[in-house]
Amino acid sequence: MAESHNKAEIGLDPEIVHGVQDALAEGGLAQAADRVLALPYADAADLIESLTPEERAALVPALKGRLDPLVLSDLAYSVREELVDLLGPRGTAQALTELDTDDAVEVVRTLDKAVQFQVLEAVPALERGEIERGLAFPENSAGRLMQRAFVAAPASWSVGQLIDHLREAEDLPDDFYDLFIVDAEFRPIAAVPLSRILRSKRPVLVGAIVEPEGEFSTVPVTMDQEDVAYLFLQRDLVSAPVVDEHGRMVGVVTVDDVVEVIEEEREEDLMRLGGMAQTDIRRGVLGTTRGRFAWLFVNLLTAILASLVIGLFEAQIEHLVALAVLMPIAASMGGNAGSQTLTVVVRGLATHEISVVNATRVVTKEVLVGSLNGVLFAALGGLVAGLWFGTWQIGLVLGAALVVNMMAAGLAGSLIPLAMHFRKIDPAISSVVFLTTVTDVVGFLAFLGLASWVLL
Amino acid sequence: MAESHNKAEIGLDPEIVHGVQDALAEGGLAQAADRVLALPYADAADLIESLTPEERAALVPALKGRLDPLVLSDLAYSVREELVDLLGPRGTAQALTELDTDDAVEVVRTLDKAVQFQVLEAVPALERGEIERGLAFPENSAGRLMQRAFVAAPASWSVGQLIDHLREAEDLPDDFYDLFIVDAEFRPIAAVPLSRILRSKRPVLVGAIVEPEGEFSTVPVTMDQEDVAYLFLQRDLVSAPVVDEHGRMVGVVTVDDVVEVIEEEREEDLMRLGGMAQTDIRRGVLGTTRGRFAWLFVNLLTAILASLVIGLFEAQIEHLVALAVLMPIAASMGGNAGSQTLTVVVRGLATHEISVVNATRVVTKEVLVGSLNGVLFAALGGLVAGLWFGTWQIGLVLGAALVVNMMAAGLAGSLIPLAMHFRKIDPAISSVVFLTTVTDVVGFLAFLGLASWVLL
Repeated sequence: MAESHNKAEIGLDPEIVHGVQDALAEGGLAQAADRVLALPYADAADLIESLTPEERAALVPALKGRLDPLVLSDLAYSVREELVDLLGPRGTAQALTELDTDDAVEVVRTLDKAVQFQVLEAVPALERGEIERGLAFPENSAGRLMQRAFVAAPASWSVGQLIDHLREAEDLPDDFYDLFIVDAEFRPIAAVPLSRILRSKRPVLVGAIVEPEGEFSTVPVTMDQEDVAYLFLQRDLVSAPVVDEHGRMVGVVTVDDVVEVIEEEREEDLMRLGGMAQTDIRRGVLGTTRGRFAWLFVNLLTAILASLVIGLFEAQIEHLVALAVLMPIAASMGGNAGSQTLTVVVRGLATHEISVVNATRVVTKEVLVGSLNGVLFAALGGLVAGLWFGTWQIGLVLGAALVVNMMAAGLAGSLIPLAMHFRKIDPAISSVVFLTTVTDVVGFLAFLGLASWVLL
Repeated sequence: MAESHNKAEIGLDPEIVHGVQDALAEGGLAQAADRVLALPYADAADLIESLTPEERAALVPALKGRLDPLVLSDLAYSVREELVDLLGPRGTAQALTELDTDDAVEVVRTLDKAVQFQVLEAVPALERGEIERGLAFPENSAGRLMQRAFVAAPASWSVGQLIDHLREAEDLPDDFYDLFIVDAEFRPIAAVPLSRILRSKRPVLVGAIVEPEGEFSTVPVTMDQEDVAYLFLQRDLVSAPVVDEHGRMVGVVTVDDVVEVIEEEREEDLMRLGGMAQTDIRRGVLGTTRGRFAWLFVNLLTAILASLVIGLFEAQIEHLVALAVLMPIAASMGGNAGSQTLTVVVRGLATHEISVVNATRVVTKEVLVGSLNGVLFAALGGLVAGLWFGTWQIGLVLGAALVVNMMAAGLAGSLIPLAMHFRKIDPAISSVVFLTTVTDVVGFLAFLGLASWVLL
C-alpha cells in the first residue's frame, strides 16, 4: 500500500463524479448519462458505486440500452442488485447476452433466487443454457471462471492453414493469447503463444513450434480457483485450457480472471484476519452492524473467559493491586507475538511455502523465536515493573509470565493454523479466536498464578 | 485461503524433495542434480528453498552452468544470496546475461553492495549497461518492472508487412501479447492485441484494427508499481507500453510482472497488519527474533501506557476488585471493533473505493456502526457483569464503557488511516499501534472512570 507520487492521475477523478452529481441535481439527465458512457467500463462502475441510491435511480433509466454490460459484472454486489432492479429482467437479460459466459455467470450467481429466475427467463434459450451450465459448476471452481470460446487446432495444421482459418472463422473469442493443440479426442496436449505463430513461416506445422522443454498444464473444471491462480503464478501462464473428467477441452481460463481471483482472495485474507467474512464498504449501517456482530460476540465470549481466569485471583489482586495494573502487559505481549507467528504461518500455507515437509521445523523455530523475544521482553518488562513498584519480585514474576506466554504464543500461533490446514479447515478466521483465547488465558494465569505463589 | 479438494496435485510434491535429499545424503550428486533440472523453474526454486544450507552447498556445484537462470530470480532473498555465493561472480553473471532485463535487475538489486559490484564486473558491458540503467529507476517503479525488448510499428504498416517483419526480426522478446503503434516521435498511440492481427487479412493496415472505443493507457517510467497493477486490473490489460518523460516508448510491462506485484503487495499488507515488515519464513531464528522485536517493543510501550491508566485507579480497584476482573472486556471489545473498521478502511483506500469523495460518509457510517454494536454489547456485557457480581450498577458501568469505547473505535479506526493516507503515509502498520493505544486508553479510562464516579 505504498503511496505514489501521482496518485491523482490514477483512479476515478473526483471532479468527474462531482460533474455527474451536479448534472443529476440540475436535472441534466442526458448530460449525466453521456459523461458516464464516455468512461471506460471499470471507471463507470466506480462512478456508479459512489453515487447515492437516489442518484442511481435517476441516472440508470437515462443509460438504458447503452450501458456497457461489463459495468454490471464489475459492480459491488449490493449496487449490482440495485442496478438489476432498475434495468428490469429484460434489460438485465439483454446485458447478459452480450457478456462472455464467465462474466454472465458471475452476475447471475450473485442475484437473489427469485430475481435470478426472472432474469434467466428473459435470456434467449441458447445463452440461458450456457449460463445454467456455468452455474452447475461448484462455486470458486475453474468451471465458473472459464470462458467457453477458445481456439484449438490439431498438431498437423500448418501456420498458414491456421492463419487462414482464423481470418475466416466467425465464433472466435474477442481476444485470445494461446493456440491450444488438441489430439483426436480433443484433449489439449500443448499451448503455442500467438507471438510464436506470428514469427513462424506459413509452411511450419503448429506442432513444431511448441517448445520441447515447455511444461504444459491443464486445469480440471473442478479445480479450486485459488489453485488455478497458484498454477498461473508458478508457470507464468497467460491462458490455460480447462478439461472435463475425460480430459477433453471445454474452455479456457485467462490471466485477467486470475488477477481478479488473486485480488478477491487478497481481500478475503485481510477481512478474515480483521474478523469479517467480507468487506462491507458498500453495505448500509444496519447490514454492516449485523455483519460484524458475530465476530464481536465470539470476542465477548473469549473476553469473559479471560475475566473468569482473573476472577480466580480476586483475593490476590485485592491484596496486591499492582497485579491488576500489570496483568494486561502479560496478556497483550503474548497476543501480539502470537499474531506475528499466525500471520507468517497462514501466509506460508497459502503460498505453499509451508507443507508437511517442513511443518515441524516451522513450529520449532516459532517456539524458539517466541522464547528468545520472551527473554528479551522479560528483562525489559521486568525492569519497568520492578522500578515502578519498587520490588524486584514483581518484576521477576512479570518477566517469567512473559517468557511463558510468548513461548506459548509461538507454539499456539503455529500449531493452530497447521492443525486446521491438515484437517482441511480454512485457517484464517477461527485461528485468531483460538490464539487470543490461548494467549489471554496463559498470560493472566501465568502472571497471577506465579504472583500468588511467589509474592503472597 | 479456501482449501481445495486436490491440493496434493498442486505445488511441489514432498516425495520429490525427499528423493533429492536422499540422493544427496547417499552422495548421488549427479542423480540429485538431474532431478532438480527436470523440474519447471518455479518448482526447482521451491525445492532449493526447502533444502538445508548444507544440502544446497552440495547440490549447487553439481548444477553449475545448467541451472535455469529464472530459478535465481524466483528464490527468496536469503536463499538467493546463498546461491549467488555458491555460483560465484562468474556463474551469477552468466545467469544474469541470459535473463530479461527486468528479472536481472530484480536479482542484482537484492544483493549486498559488495557482491553486486563483483557480479556486475563479470557481466559483459552491453548487458551491464542495461542492468545499470534499470537499477537507476526508483525502487517499485514501472522502470524497474519493465522489459526493454518490445514490438512497435507505425500505423501505416499493413498486417502482411508486420508479419513478414516479425518472421525475419532477430531481437524480439521471447513472448509478447500486443503490438504497439507508435507515431513519428516513437510515442505509443495504440495497442493491437496479437489475436486481432492474426484474424486480419494481409493488406489491412495495423492502424485500422485498433478498436475505436478502446481506452489506451501508457505507463510513465516513474509510476509506482502498485498504480501499474491498479491500471492493469481496471483496464484488463495484458501488456502496456512504458514511456519516458517525453512520452517516448522505452519498454513494456507485462501481466506476469503485475501478478507478481499484486502477490508481493498482498504479502506486504498481511505482514504489516500482523506487525512485521516482511515475511521471515526463510530467516533463521536470530534474524526472525530481531525482525519482530521492534513491533513488540512498540507494543510494550502501548501496554505500559494502558497500565499507567489503570494505575490511576489503584484505590478504586483495591476497593472493588470486580473492576480488575471486568476491565479487559471494555478494552478488548473496543480493540476488535476498531480493527474491523481499520481493515475495511485500509483496504478501501488501497482499492480506491474510498477517496475524498466519500471520506466523510465512511467516518459517519463507522461511528454509527460502532455505536450500534456498542449498544448491543452493552446490553449483553452489562447483563453478564450484573448477574456475575449481583449488582446492576456494575453492569451499567460496563455497558456505558462499551458504548463509549466502541464508538471511539469506529472514529479512530476510520480517521487514523484516512489522515495518514491524505498525508501520503502508508496507513497499514502504524495505524494498528495508534488504534490499539486509543482503544486501550479509552476502554480502561471509561470503565474505571465511570466506576469510580458511579460506584464509589
